[in-house]
Amino acid sequence: MSNSMLQIIPQSQETHKSQPKTPAILVIGGAEDKVHGKEILHTFWERSGGTEAIIGIIPSASREPTLIGERYHRIFEDMGAKELKVIDIRDRTQGEDPYYREFVERCTGIFMTGGDQLRLCGLLADTPLMNRILERVRLGEISIAGTSAGAAVMGYNMIAGGGSGESPNRSLVDMATGFGIIPEVIVDQHFHNRNRTARLLSAIAPYPDHLGIGIDEDTCAMFERDGWVEIIGKGTVIFINTKTMTYTNQAQVTSTDPLSLHNLQVSILCHGDRYHLPNHETIPVKCGTQ
Amino acid sequence: MSNSMLQIIPQSQETHKSQPKTPAILVIGGAEDKVHGKEILHTFWERSGGTEAIIGIIPSASREPTLIGERYHRIFEDMGAKELKVIDIRDRTQGEDPYYREFVERCTGIFMTGGDQLRLCGLLADTPLMNRILERVRLGEISIAGTSAGAAVMGYNMIAGGGSGESPNRSLVDMATGFGIIPEVIVDQHFHNRNRTARLLSAIAPYPDHLGIGIDEDTCAMFERDGWVEIIGKGTVIFINTKTMTYTNQAQVTSTDPLSLHNLQVSILCHGDRYHLPNHETIPVKCGTQ
Repeated sequence: MSNSMLQIIPQSQETHKSQPKTPAILVIGGAEDKVHGKEILHTFWERSGGTEAIIGIIPSASREPTLIGERYHRIFEDMGAKELKVIDIRDRTQGEDPYYREFVERCTGIFMTGGDQLRLCGLLADTPLMNRILERVRLGEISIAGTSAGAAVMGYNMIAGGGSGESPNRSLVDMATGFGIIPEVIVDQHFHNRNRTARLLSAIAPYPDHLGIGIDEDTCAMFERDGWVEIIGKGTVIFINTKTMTYTNQAQVTSTDPLSLHNLQVSILCHGDRYHLPNHETIPVKCGTQ
Repeated sequence: MSNSMLQIIPQSQETHKSQPKTPAILVIGGAEDKVHGKEILHTFWERSGGTEAIIGIIPSASREPTLIGERYHRIFEDMGAKELKVIDIRDRTQGEDPYYREFVERCTGIFMTGGDQLRLCGLLADTPLMNRILERVRLGEISIAGTSAGAAVMGYNMIAGGGSGESPNRSLVDMATGFGIIPEVIVDQHFHNRNRTARLLSAIAPYPDHLGIGIDEDTCAMFERDGWVEIIGKGTVIFINTKTMTYTNQAQVTSTDPLSLHNLQVSILCHGDRYHLPNHETIPVKCGTQ
């Protein structure tokens, strides 16, 4: 965990308490509820400061950034956020724009929408604006959330695309570089909804010290600063720990050969369940201290 | 393993040697190669005695038993089997037919085709004919193979049907009772091809001492009498061990709620890899002693 941008403050299991106002990283599997209880979006708003929240919405993954930016703007406005801005980057030079850079110094939360993760990274990776956002996340000063494409960019190794309906094999997934907010995870979204098991297995096979995370729609893995990940929402989150992997053939086979992965530790978690990132422990909802 | 119909003869890892002519149980994920190398079917023919093989084909899962029976008849005939009979049971009373019962006393291998596993079990479960076949398999006297529906019936708890594209939940899978040839396994087939992860997870959640096995098309898990399972074919076989499971919510939730399963031991194996059923160990192909 030494290279993690998510700097974990050690805390024992017993003393873990959910802190509604502390910054967190919310990784959302796409298609989150935007109409009824809006539980996940409400949690992000709360973790960004609630009525004190100053939220920046990054719609750059989408080909309809105006439309999607306005939609989230309205949602967080209705919740009572103090200030909102759509950081509508459509050109890499805008990543130096003083107007946006001033705003990210003041903001308390950043929300990245869905769309195409390659587009999002292409427009923002390594810009002064994004680098400052990532620094403030790393320092624990602000919350960040990403849904769908916005979730995919969380790891250093990013799933850019892929298929399903085949045995796991390297050609089933296209990899690229994400923002590295939680570097050791590889995130897939719309997970069971779009049958992405083989694609996530194919993605993690080359990384024996990583954690594959598959998040269902309307479901969120919320990473806390104390190393705990809490599940919120309607579906499940699967954690695939490759640290226990005793063997994979991935380095020896061609890109279309089937992949073997021996002895993975796998957990499927639901709403309220928690996963300890450094220790790979799980706590069911009923045993929680919250 | 005490209740297992697959009576395991203990043998150390070092002394394991593949015995081409010894009876085995071949669990095939459907759509096995019937035209080119026919590797899986050839292995079954070999394990049934090769040129000395007396093979019974059970096409009862299919609604076209004549057609499918003839197809496999021709394949094993071309390989050089000594004697072949299609055990074309279309009515439970035929399960007492002296003609077929005499044949199963002499046969060295039984092959169950694809179709509908409920139909197969409905026609044959608890008939004198099937009971005698199962007894001879248990005694290690004959080989048995099943593909697709014929694979589904291998466990005591059988997946009868189900869906995909959802978080794991109890309503995603219909369970019934299989032949219990390898009682502690729950088999799913066409596994990655039809995206059946959520369905297999849903099936195994209530069984904390079971092994979920998902077999891809043109792929076979071959269960040996010494406890080793060897993978043959083009795809992968996933082994999901619930003995390590520390928690599931399945008893507390409704049939449509998402299921949690914490700390499963999961291995994805390819051609030549082996899995030790009692100890849940894996050996990659390159380390094999064969």
